[in-house]
Amino acid sequence: MEFVTGTPKKSMSKQDLAALVGQTVTLDGMVHALRPLGGVTFLTLRLPDGAVQCVAAPELLPGDLCEECAVTLTGQAAAERRAPGGMEVRLTGLEVLSRPAQPMPVPVSKGRLKLNLDTELGLRPVVLRALKERAVFKIQEGLSRAFREYLTGQGFTEVHTPKIVHAGAEGGSNIFRLDYFGRKAFLAQSPQFYKQTMVGVFQRVFEVAPVFRAEKHSTPRHLNEYTSLDFEMGFIRSFQDVMDMEAGFLQYAMALLARDYADDLALLGVTLPQADKIPAVRFDEAKRLAAEKYGRPIRDPYDLEPEEEHNIGRYFKEEYGADFVFVTHYPAKKRPFYAMDDPADPKYTLSFDLLFRGMEVTTGGQRIHDYAQQVAKMEAKGMDPAEFDSYLMIHKHGMPPHGGLGIGLERLTAQLCGLDNVRRASLFPRDLSRLEP
Amino acid sequence: MEFVTGTPKKSMSKQDLAALVGQTVTLDGMVHALRPLGGVTFLTLRLPDGAVQCVAAPELLPGDLCEECAVTLTGQAAAERRAPGGMEVRLTGLEVLSRPAQPMPVPVSKGRLKLNLDTELGLRPVVLRALKERAVFKIQEGLSRAFREYLTGQGFTEVHTPKIVHAGAEGGSNIFRLDYFGRKAFLAQSPQFYKQTMVGVFQRVFEVAPVFRAEKHSTPRHLNEYTSLDFEMGFIRSFQDVMDMEAGFLQYAMALLARDYADDLALLGVTLPQADKIPAVRFDEAKRLAAEKYGRPIRDPYDLEPEEEHNIGRYFKEEYGADFVFVTHYPAKKRPFYAMDDPADPKYTLSFDLLFRGMEVTTGGQRIHDYAQQVAKMEAKGMDPAEFDSYLMIHKHGMPPHGGLGIGLERLTAQLCGLDNVRRASLFPRDLSRLEP
Repeated sequence: MEFVTGTPKKSMSKQDLAALVGQTVTLDGMVHALRPLGGVTFLTLRLPDGAVQCVAAPELLPGDLCEECAVTLTGQAAAERRAPGGMEVRLTGLEVLSRPAQPMPVPVSKGRLKLNLDTELGLRPVVLRALKERAVFKIQEGLSRAFREYLTGQGFTEVHTPKIVHAGAEGGSNIFRLDYFGRKAFLAQSPQFYKQTMVGVFQRVFEVAPVFRAEKHSTPRHLNEYTSLDFEMGFIRSFQDVMDMEAGFLQYAMALLARDYADDLALLGVTLPQADKIPAVRFDEAKRLAAEKYGRPIRDPYDLEPEEEHNIGRYFKEEYGADFVFVTHYPAKKRPFYAMDDPADPKYTLSFDLLFRGMEVTTGGQRIHDYAQQVAKMEAKGMDPAEFDSYLMIHKHGMPPHGGLGIGLERLTAQLCGLDNVRRASLFPRDLSRLEP
Repeated sequence: MEFVTGTPKKSMSKQDLAALVGQTVTLDGMVHALRPLGGVTFLTLRLPDGAVQCVAAPELLPGDLCEECAVTLTGQAAAERRAPGGMEVRLTGLEVLSRPAQPMPVPVSKGRLKLNLDTELGLRPVVLRALKERAVFKIQEGLSRAFREYLTGQGFTEVHTPKIVHAGAEGGSNIFRLDYFGRKAFLAQSPQFYKQTMVGVFQRVFEVAPVFRAEKHSTPRHLNEYTSLDFEMGFIRSFQDVMDMEAGFLQYAMALLARDYADDLALLGVTLPQADKIPAVRFDEAKRLAAEKYGRPIRDPYDLEPEEEHNIGRYFKEEYGADFVFVTHYPAKKRPFYAMDDPADPKYTLSFDLLFRGMEVTTGGQRIHDYAQQVAKMEAKGMDPAEFDSYLMIHKHGMPPHGGLGIGLERLTAQLCGLDNVRRASLFPRDLSRLEP
């Protein structure tokens, strides 16, 4: 009998390599670029976390070696001032593991590709091999890792809740429908009902998962499928507790990125924002401040237009040096039925959005926990509580005061990396016209 | 201007409390049970990670205090040999934050609920508050945490790939269809194409996300939506590298559970399996061994029936004391078009399943990386390569040898916890008849 013992082969990263200067190393990677120069050949090897310059005598390399060959290299790791990262590998051996059938359709080994967005997204499966493209998704990984690590440290439990559902949480027509064995079903617009349910079980929960919005917008800020970072917490004294938790996460995330993703940040020229002190301003006050300063009249007193979000972000950057702004107390008519109204003025809710460099990246707030109050608000909105029996079960049998939020991971990534379109922060974006790759 | 500084309130866990014996403590929690006894009242308070016994003079408690009230308690933490966990809190103050509108429909404060599965699943939103019910999902959290931590340490990058797709990865009719702005779309059966794509970018990737299978089976082992732990790794020398990585994960996971989830394991009476040396046996050999030992003739030489899986598991438990068994070299006709055939005998593939206590919890193997080979296999299976253009782009432009696997998180949890139905390891299971809660 053979046995598997669980001692997998390590993968060598650029970071590992930096500790091995002066030694013989073996490296697996893709040939990212090949360039003959002055009697030697420079081979850039793509590694999981960067690329490393390798130098070879031309006779060492097979004649048909080309970009996007998979290779195993052997050589001496050496300090080299002129090489990117201050080191190179002087090759003594090379094994070709696989060869492409055709050259790349676009030169991914060049610095900036400058493709138009449609072309780029069509070629995404291979364009993502460009170092600057993939750096965006390393940073994205850092953000979701920070979210989980921080909340786990704060006593939250991770949950997995269904995406095929019998009713939408956000209402409206922006919901995908499907046939579920002959019954009408929907794709979850958010894990709202389920994360509230789980507050009754674990007090504090989070989920990182896809959500689906059948919005017929085609804008640089909308995706029809995105990754939502959701949390929900019980025993809050105010919705400020939820904002405090988000600010704590952002501080943790920026510190983690600075520590573990410095190369990716540098490659993209990203300056990390300050999250130590985030201004919080009421919705109507924020609208007024931005309207007065930038001379743009308020057209809809109940909602923020994208340009108003932009101006509010600009105002707080100029006046307070702030990249983040909490906008609080959104009008009740624009918030869903589970939002807690402000007892001081029920036209407003105990809720907030977080704007990051002028774009909404989070919606959150306190939820109704009392059964009678929730049923009354549903009825006032013309809804039939009987359709929400399984959700209202939690209110009926006891819930603590609670609140939470959802963060759009792609928007957060796009704003952090300074991308002009949220699609660039989704590996394989879904929009009105795009269902593949 | 007000500022949010990111210093959220801590939640007090049972574990925190254990360090505070002799001190005055304040605790947020739900009243899990209330029991007057000999002139005092015992109140069991439900905390995020367990429950703690509290004792109060009856006059301290409001007359309408009941189970599932949300409360904030103050009292002295004291060692108490007779209390569960060896400590209790002697109450000096109690604030009621909310009250249920109705008592619980079933006595969740009792040890075992003994509900039939249908009743239980219908009442899931509140039944999950039972300590033994929720312990299953703490253990589940530990498994997905272990998966991410272990793979991150092995140089894997986390990815998020789309769940609304234009083509299924697994073929067949077991796929949910939906209307996507007038176009035909599907729900992803697995992240297969995308995780392979990302191997070309990051070498090693993983994803924890929902997958959807429109299987018309109603069995204790099937869910129509489940959480898949997927990874894919480049530069493998053999599919054994993939099995080694899985064994490494399982060893890491069992150590993490023993360290961080001991109370939950004890509550459920779970004995952790050994994963140090996992036997690996060829598909046809495994069938023969089990058939001979248990006298059950082989009916289908190309597939494993559930009872055969059970018997193979039993065989390796009896002969080798093994809870896990890798079954390798599955027949090509039962594996998808991207599976690498065994060059030694192309009727079989370089693939495997992992059985855990007699049930398949993982499918994995090496994939085809060569463009011509992949196109030829698709054509041999009667497929049209043109329909898979965006997937084949990666083979055309170069891929390293690679392989990977998908683990069903709910099945892994159910087998670990000794549950008789995989639905019990899903918070809100989706099956042929169940679309809510």
